[in-house]
Amino acid sequence: MSRKTPRLFVDQPAFAGRYLSFTRDHAHYLLDVMRLKSGDKVLVFNGRDGEWHVELTETGRRKALGKFIQQTRPQPAFTGPDLCFAPVKKTGTYFIVEKATELGVRSLRPITTEFTDRTQVKVDRLRANAIEAAEQCGRIDVPDVHELLSLRSIVDNWPASQTMLVADETGNGDAPLSVILTMDSSGLPPTFVIGPQGGFSETELVFLRALPFVTTVDLGPRILRAETAAVAVLSCWQAARGDWI
Amino acid sequence: MSRKTPRLFVDQPAFAGRYLSFTRDHAHYLLDVMRLKSGDKVLVFNGRDGEWHVELTETGRRKALGKFIQQTRPQPAFTGPDLCFAPVKKTGTYFIVEKATELGVRSLRPITTEFTDRTQVKVDRLRANAIEAAEQCGRIDVPDVHELLSLRSIVDNWPASQTMLVADETGNGDAPLSVILTMDSSGLPPTFVIGPQGGFSETELVFLRALPFVTTVDLGPRILRAETAAVAVLSCWQAARGDWI
Repeated sequence: MSRKTPRLFVDQPAFAGRYLSFTRDHAHYLLDVMRLKSGDKVLVFNGRDGEWHVELTETGRRKALGKFIQQTRPQPAFTGPDLCFAPVKKTGTYFIVEKATELGVRSLRPITTEFTDRTQVKVDRLRANAIEAAEQCGRIDVPDVHELLSLRSIVDNWPASQTMLVADETGNGDAPLSVILTMDSSGLPPTFVIGPQGGFSETELVFLRALPFVTTVDLGPRILRAETAAVAVLSCWQAARGDWI
Repeated sequence: MSRKTPRLFVDQPAFAGRYLSFTRDHAHYLLDVMRLKSGDKVLVFNGRDGEWHVELTETGRRKALGKFIQQTRPQPAFTGPDLCFAPVKKTGTYFIVEKATELGVRSLRPITTEFTDRTQVKVDRLRANAIEAAEQCGRIDVPDVHELLSLRSIVDNWPASQTMLVADETGNGDAPLSVILTMDSSGLPPTFVIGPQGGFSETELVFLRALPFVTTVDLGPRILRAETAAVAVLSCWQAARGDWI
C-alpha cells in the first residue's frame, strides 16, 4: 500500500466485515481532496483495535461508507513518556501537541504555573491536533489530552512511583538529561515537566526539588524555548530508552 | 545581571572603552520597548570577541550610544554540528532555523531535493531569525546561514573527512540515531541532512547511501515531519556528544 494511502482516526469499533460511515469531514477529505472512489483503500485506526484496511463501498456527496477488510497492524502496548507543559502562545501550544504526538508521548497535561500567562486552553482543539498528528505520523493510538490544571494540584495527587523529570533552565538541575536517562533505567517511563516561557519561579523550583519523585534535569548551556525543550526531552528519551533504539 | 537584561548581536568590534552606536531598530527596542535610560546595562556580542557588558551613554529619539565596559564571557571555540535541510513551508523553515540555533548548530544549509517544493528562500530573513534566536537563547555566536543549493552540488563538493548523517524515514537506515552517535565518537561533529516534507526520493537515497561519507539513520517507527526531525537529531547529538553532557 502506498505511503500516500489516507490514514484516519475513527472512534468506532473495528472488526472484519463491519461497515463504517465516515463523518462529513472525512468524506470531504477522502472524496474531494484525495479523489478516492468506491473500491479504493483507506487505513483506519481507533486507538484500541489496531490499524485496519478499509475499503470504500459507497460514496456520494459528502458521504462515504466503508468496510473493515483486514487488520494491517495490531494495537501495540503503549510505552511512551507523559508530558506536562505550560501552554505558551497559541501556535507554540499546538506545536507542542503536534510534535509530542509524533515523538510518541502517551499523554499531554497542560498546566498553569506562576509565570503562565494563559489561564485556559481549548482542550478540544488540542485533541484534534493530537489526532491529526497521529494520523500523519503513523501512530496507532492517540495521546490523551487532559484538561488544564495547576502544577500544584497535579503534584498534590501524584503517585510516588511515577518519576517526574523537570526541565530546569537555571543550570542548577540535578544532572544533565543524558546522565539521568542513562542512570534511571528501571520502572515506568517518566513524566517530563516543561515550564512556561518565563521559566518556573524560584519558589516553584524549591518546592519541586523537595518532592521525592522529582528529578530536575539540565538541557545544556543555552536557554531553550518551552516548545524546543518539549521536543528535545522527548527525542532524547526515545533515543535513549524508547522505541528508537 | 538579571536575566531580563537585553542581549543584542552587533556586527562591530568589541573592546573595553570602545563606543558603539546602536542601529535605529536596536535603539527603538532598548529605549521604547525595554525603557532603558543612560547608565543602564546591555549585553552585546558580535560572534568574535565574546559577550560584553555595554553601558548606555547617550539616548535620544531612535538613537542610542553605548560603551563597551567589560567582557562577561569569552568567545567559545565552536563545536556544534551542521544542518542541511530542505526548506518546508514558510513557518516550518523559520522554525528550523530558530530551533537549530537554540540547539547549538554551527551552520545551516538550505538544500533543494527532488521533492522540495520551494525553489528559493529568503536567506537574509533566515539570518535575521538566527540572530534573534542567538540573542534569545544566550549564544555568543550566530550560525552561518548559507545560500540555497541543490543536494547534488553540496555532495559533489563535500570533504570526505566530514560525516553526513542522513535522516532516513523509510526505516532502512544503517542504524538508529542512538547507535550511530554512540559508535562514532571520533572526529568532527557531523552534518545532519534532513529531507523535505515528502522525504527523499528512492533515487536520492540510493545515491546518498553509496557515498563513503554518508551514514543513514533511523528516527524511530513514526514518520517525523521535517522540522521535528531537525530538532530531534540536534537534541540527541547534544545529549550524546555535545555540550549537554
